[in-house]
Amino acid sequence: MNTPTPAYDKLRTELREIGILSSIGSLLGWDQQVMLPEAGNPYRAGQMEFLAKLIHERSTSGKLGDLIAAAEAEAGGLDRHSDAAVVARDARRGYDRETKLPGELVAEMAKTEVLGHQAWVEARKNSSYASFKPWLAKWLDLKKQEIACVGYKDHPYDALLDRYEPYETAAGVTKVFESLRDELVSLVQKIAGSSKKAPIEIMERSYDVKAQEAFGRLAAEAIGFDFTAGRLDVSVHPFCSGQGQGDTRMTTRYHENHFNDAFFGVLHETGHALYEQGLQKEKYLGEALGDSVSLGIHESQSRMWENLVGRSRAFWKFFMPKARNSFPQTLNGVTDDQWYAATNAVQPSLIRVEADEMTYNLHILIRFEMETALTSGQLGVDDVPAAWNEKYKKYLGITPPNDAKGCLQDVHWSAGLMGYFPTYTLGNLYAAQFYDQATKDIPDLEQQFASGNFKPLLGWLRENIHQHGRRYSARELVKRITGTELSAQPLLNYLRGKASEVYGV
Amino acid sequence: MNTPTPAYDKLRTELREIGILSSIGSLLGWDQQVMLPEAGNPYRAGQMEFLAKLIHERSTSGKLGDLIAAAEAEAGGLDRHSDAAVVARDARRGYDRETKLPGELVAEMAKTEVLGHQAWVEARKNSSYASFKPWLAKWLDLKKQEIACVGYKDHPYDALLDRYEPYETAAGVTKVFESLRDELVSLVQKIAGSSKKAPIEIMERSYDVKAQEAFGRLAAEAIGFDFTAGRLDVSVHPFCSGQGQGDTRMTTRYHENHFNDAFFGVLHETGHALYEQGLQKEKYLGEALGDSVSLGIHESQSRMWENLVGRSRAFWKFFMPKARNSFPQTLNGVTDDQWYAATNAVQPSLIRVEADEMTYNLHILIRFEMETALTSGQLGVDDVPAAWNEKYKKYLGITPPNDAKGCLQDVHWSAGLMGYFPTYTLGNLYAAQFYDQATKDIPDLEQQFASGNFKPLLGWLRENIHQHGRRYSARELVKRITGTELSAQPLLNYLRGKASEVYGV
Repeated sequence: MNTPTPAYDKLRTELREIGILSSIGSLLGWDQQVMLPEAGNPYRAGQMEFLAKLIHERSTSGKLGDLIAAAEAEAGGLDRHSDAAVVARDARRGYDRETKLPGELVAEMAKTEVLGHQAWVEARKNSSYASFKPWLAKWLDLKKQEIACVGYKDHPYDALLDRYEPYETAAGVTKVFESLRDELVSLVQKIAGSSKKAPIEIMERSYDVKAQEAFGRLAAEAIGFDFTAGRLDVSVHPFCSGQGQGDTRMTTRYHENHFNDAFFGVLHETGHALYEQGLQKEKYLGEALGDSVSLGIHESQSRMWENLVGRSRAFWKFFMPKARNSFPQTLNGVTDDQWYAATNAVQPSLIRVEADEMTYNLHILIRFEMETALTSGQLGVDDVPAAWNEKYKKYLGITPPNDAKGCLQDVHWSAGLMGYFPTYTLGNLYAAQFYDQATKDIPDLEQQFASGNFKPLLGWLRENIHQHGRRYSARELVKRITGTELSAQPLLNYLRGKASEVYGV
Repeated sequence: MNTPTPAYDKLRTELREIGILSSIGSLLGWDQQVMLPEAGNPYRAGQMEFLAKLIHERSTSGKLGDLIAAAEAEAGGLDRHSDAAVVARDARRGYDRETKLPGELVAEMAKTEVLGHQAWVEARKNSSYASFKPWLAKWLDLKKQEIACVGYKDHPYDALLDRYEPYETAAGVTKVFESLRDELVSLVQKIAGSSKKAPIEIMERSYDVKAQEAFGRLAAEAIGFDFTAGRLDVSVHPFCSGQGQGDTRMTTRYHENHFNDAFFGVLHETGHALYEQGLQKEKYLGEALGDSVSLGIHESQSRMWENLVGRSRAFWKFFMPKARNSFPQTLNGVTDDQWYAATNAVQPSLIRVEADEMTYNLHILIRFEMETALTSGQLGVDDVPAAWNEKYKKYLGITPPNDAKGCLQDVHWSAGLMGYFPTYTLGNLYAAQFYDQATKDIPDLEQQFASGNFKPLLGWLRENIHQHGRRYSARELVKRITGTELSAQPLLNYLRGKASEVYGV
């Protein structure tokens, strides 16, 4: 029998109501991206601002503070992974972060987000770092204030990272990223020096947009997306959002001459969506137990389906005949090996969002190294373009011709999103380590893929990851599932295997 | 210079916030009808219920009561049609109605809405009035409690009607409906006896669904719908909802063998939408001045565009060549006269929602007479089917073969919507009277239609109706615009003209 936990019960009622408000905000956001007529934008912004205010009021209320304190007291004698203990601890974490930031700082950040974004758009257009520099300096100042309010143990960056990847630290990330970096740089150099080239032009041929859409839906459904509990639509910036129990929505965009974009984009968003569809939202809405662990773990799900599954030979053994049916003329004469090589091509490039799965991590490492140096004061805003270009030369062997294609390429810093980038590569690391374990637990996993059966992997993810919500931290989850600490080796092994197959290196 | 009105300013801030919450509820509702995946329905119901609770709390709060009282005191010396006076009066009206109903009654009604609807669906399926009767009795009991709480001067029905058609009374409706009834019954009888028949089969031919959609959009845009500030989608039950400034959404449904359904449905919803797009929502969100007058006035806009404009010779002079382009085979050999007769066919039928614009009003009159008799106690629930059938025989010359096609056909009573029906025919009456005036004010109005120019009429509606929001009651508006009291004569004259043209009677 469970111990009665009346304080927890009261807390979860409050969290549930805040969760409902948040999910309404999520619908407003989805609609804005996908459905809203142009002239409705200003009013929608007002609706979202008002709703955010309501949510902020409830998330920082004295009432919630009291409920959390009572639940913490009650959970004192319970197992740290029991429902009541997890939720009390997680609610405290969120509440403290929210209440530690003074209202003026939050307001100043909201203002700077709008103005900084405008300045960045202009600066990138003119490739003028000078005109963006004051805004980066402004954000650094605001972030330092945030860091001071939130507090940290070791590195100031911890206070920022923790928002997106709870309990992760700069030191922890540095350790694993460093063991990844040199190996990756060396692998990319070997590929560049190989005489074997991947036929990437195949991906730039003409792919009928209607057929792309149908093929993408087929794949999303085959790997487990439940279309009776979700949607796939079109938007300028692809995303996935869980709207609540039974309602997970993802988007993509189609370009006739870019097969990769939409198809692997759909697999990526489906990975996020399968996580959302696997969370226990009905039971635990608004609580840690019904929510995702972290951005990195969320990303591990999207990257696993996009890359480890979606770029595998086994996957295409099942889907290649269907692709040939969907694009008969385009794929005429393309062999399975050519297709595999084209989907796994590696080529250093300047723009992160267009990077392949291997070099992508180097883009992230560069940003992480710069962000930690910026927040610690080792790097000044004056030196950003030089440091950026030096790192691109060093890690990727290429130099941006201008700052628009260099340090101005990403929107994140203009919106104060510092501490966010590392979660992308953490996602790749988690994905590889989880997948490695999954193939041990289910030895015929890839044979199942080859016959179109993706249920064993999805079932494994549901059981090991999805059902737990945020009961365990990302590091705890990795340890629990794989028996070892987070490591760069599974990702490196996986990437080495690909490099060997495609480039013979 | 305007007199300062600080109390009004405070009141409108509160009303604006309630208005934002209501508009968010409207989006949730639109999304539910148009976008929501099936499995998301239970969670959406929970979101909507929670939001309704928030809105109810704020709409009945002591804070709002105090703000209204202060605004009323301030408005005491102002013109009754000044902004501050209108808004204070309207807010009082809404507040009193909301606060007069005890929570238990509201909860009981919400429950009965769900259970009554389920019972009605079953009862209609089995054509079993006996199984629905207890629910109608239950609703009558609840409505009598509502009437007792809200209060009334003359007829108990006034308390119900006033919710949908503010300041209207059973006596007022009875007077104008009675002057309509006998003339209409006689006109319908003459048509039935005429040797001329309208070629209604034209409407049941095959109309390509894609072409119907394109043609409907063309028409909606031509009469003034701004697609940069709105949408047209598909839903099971067509509707239009104003989501806020710059965002008005309407829906329809397409059937290959029913041209009328989608096309006149789109014109109808466009009429509602043009009203929504013409309201001053940015300036007056949540206030009477930015909202519609009444359901009847809203309906007058939809009926005007659907019927008085959309079924006119002038309209089709412009659109017939386009229709021939859109449906070349279907309309092969159809003359303009045949098309005009087909779009204006009159034929008594059992089902209200499928009725033509003339007999439609008799369906409404029947429901109005029954509802007033039910609420006054003149009619008991036991006698509903007999009374219904007798009236159908008397007014329309036909008798329902069973109750499913008789008194069980409409969803309204199962949801406690009593007092709602008369607004449909009030809409027709207002529309005809307004349109009569518009043709006097703009003598070449129909010549403009014939050349595809609908701006003069839309401009007239914007100036005379839309811009005022709810500054004037429906009756005041009619008097202000036409110089006379509401009368059945303009509608009768219009319908007589059609009957004469199409049926030679």
